[in-house]
Amino acid sequence: MNLREIGEFGLIERIDRMIARGQRSLPNDLIIGIGDDAAVWKNDFHTVTVSTVDTLVEGIHFTREFSSWQDVGWKALAVNLSDVAAMGADPRWALVALSLPDRMPFDDVRRLYQGLIACARRYRTHLVGGNITKSPGSLVVSVTVTGSVKPRRLWRRDGARIGDVIAVTGHLGEAAAGLAALKKNTSVPSAVRRYRRPIPRLDAARRLQKAGITVHAAIDLSDGLAGDLRHVCKASRTGARVDLDVLPVTPSTVRLARRFNVPLDRWSLGGGEDYELLLTMTEKDFNKALKLFRKKLTPIGIVTPGRDIRFYRNGRPTGICIAGFRHF
Amino acid sequence: MNLREIGEFGLIERIDRMIARGQRSLPNDLIIGIGDDAAVWKNDFHTVTVSTVDTLVEGIHFTREFSSWQDVGWKALAVNLSDVAAMGADPRWALVALSLPDRMPFDDVRRLYQGLIACARRYRTHLVGGNITKSPGSLVVSVTVTGSVKPRRLWRRDGARIGDVIAVTGHLGEAAAGLAALKKNTSVPSAVRRYRRPIPRLDAARRLQKAGITVHAAIDLSDGLAGDLRHVCKASRTGARVDLDVLPVTPSTVRLARRFNVPLDRWSLGGGEDYELLLTMTEKDFNKALKLFRKKLTPIGIVTPGRDIRFYRNGRPTGICIAGFRHF
Repeated sequence: MNLREIGEFGLIERIDRMIARGQRSLPNDLIIGIGDDAAVWKNDFHTVTVSTVDTLVEGIHFTREFSSWQDVGWKALAVNLSDVAAMGADPRWALVALSLPDRMPFDDVRRLYQGLIACARRYRTHLVGGNITKSPGSLVVSVTVTGSVKPRRLWRRDGARIGDVIAVTGHLGEAAAGLAALKKNTSVPSAVRRYRRPIPRLDAARRLQKAGITVHAAIDLSDGLAGDLRHVCKASRTGARVDLDVLPVTPSTVRLARRFNVPLDRWSLGGGEDYELLLTMTEKDFNKALKLFRKKLTPIGIVTPGRDIRFYRNGRPTGICIAGFRHF
Repeated sequence: MNLREIGEFGLIERIDRMIARGQRSLPNDLIIGIGDDAAVWKNDFHTVTVSTVDTLVEGIHFTREFSSWQDVGWKALAVNLSDVAAMGADPRWALVALSLPDRMPFDDVRRLYQGLIACARRYRTHLVGGNITKSPGSLVVSVTVTGSVKPRRLWRRDGARIGDVIAVTGHLGEAAAGLAALKKNTSVPSAVRRYRRPIPRLDAARRLQKAGITVHAAIDLSDGLAGDLRHVCKASRTGARVDLDVLPVTPSTVRLARRFNVPLDRWSLGGGEDYELLLTMTEKDFNKALKLFRKKLTPIGIVTPGRDIRFYRNGRPTGICIAGFRHF
């Protein structure tokens, strides 16, 4: 059996089980291990530590054709900050592990670091260490980000409750639209920028935390709404109902979908890399939250009993089933 | 200018400067940023957090020919634990970022994790998260390890003092001898095992800490004694004098050097991957330490004024200059 046959999430499940068996008892101060946006452990009485790692590989996550080295540096850090945001936490420290082809000009490494530094400054995170090795092939950049949050304010993936409103920040499918535009040599700056320089929703997370709103479950939309919502429902042992008519999309995403003759749902449900947050909370908390965000927080469905995720259009169930992005 | 022209350490220096300029003021709770075995930040009043990342790349750090997947998994974690040991700290949590070719059989991933899990159990570290992506070429595994130590017990790279004894744990050059044996299809189990399954010197670090011995500077020997000692001297603004006659080597390393007609110094000074600790401390502390270790701690020289590292044989200076391992 090779990895393609098992699939990415099948692989992660198997590894999770191996580790659980291998390590026998988990330490008391581990709060979240494998299976959320970040690992979480107790720090002191006041905070828990949140730590996450993500990798970008040349030829898989980016190509030189569509992204500058500055874009790659920005994105390598931003995707991790997005995971920290999805825990409701504040990022603080970043380690960068780079594997570089030795024919690479130093100027390109400099540009990559310009992007990393720009992103670190914007989100008040510090680049404090790392590791550099040669690569026989593609460039690989892994970033580890560590941050913290008060334990009672931690947003888990597995806390969704039946009846919760499912809400998303910002707009969906725009990064996929941007990538499609790049592939067709079309210039749509907002969508392209969204693909190249994702915005981790730390500001949204902070605003919700500051207002004292209780988020039951959260995940960042890196693989696409359909797949990421499935992770939340699976972890929380719930189902969900999603109203396709209200998914927030930008006018340029709609235009590009029409122009390239792509069903809009493919991007809004299945397109990854938007790095918006999906949140579930009580209706009461959602109404409070709405006042903080105006149009930038959209209710798209509710958490339901059972295990199914049902997509509705015009009030009627559709047969839609869209898989999120999987590596294998 | 490409990376080969700048060199690994030239590259790291340039990146360090860029980050220092880009981030302007460093936060007060950052204790060590780039330029030691790990990054260190304040945790609470009692401890500091130590965090480090290291990457193994197929074709650069290992080949399928010479290491099993279990060996690769073990080593990927062990090299990080060695960095933690070199800070005098205790490791606790590990994140694993894997980039895998999709034609890879699941059984090989399982074996890789068997190695990771075995090493984690042996050194009481917990695998708590990570990330898996596809790789278009080689397998790349980056491990981030986080641990802690009391702030006054932290071992820095830049604390060597003139007159300090320079000591190393264990034996030098054995991993290089093991790799050479593998390349010549020779079986020398101890040396080969040393290359495949390095032992992070956490036990030695703990013993020294427990006995209350003050270590002024420490580094783990990953690139080779000559190069790693140079890092300590550069960071500490000192020189060093090393007595080549007393470098601890195993009989099998001596035999293999003779057999392959390799100058022994090339392995003991320039061979990397031994993952022993190099420590500097006062003579008084060294004498205390010696009682804890018997033959497993060897004084090899002293810290001197100036900036030069001089190698002596039979009491006379030699012209020896051996570069440590560099990626570029």
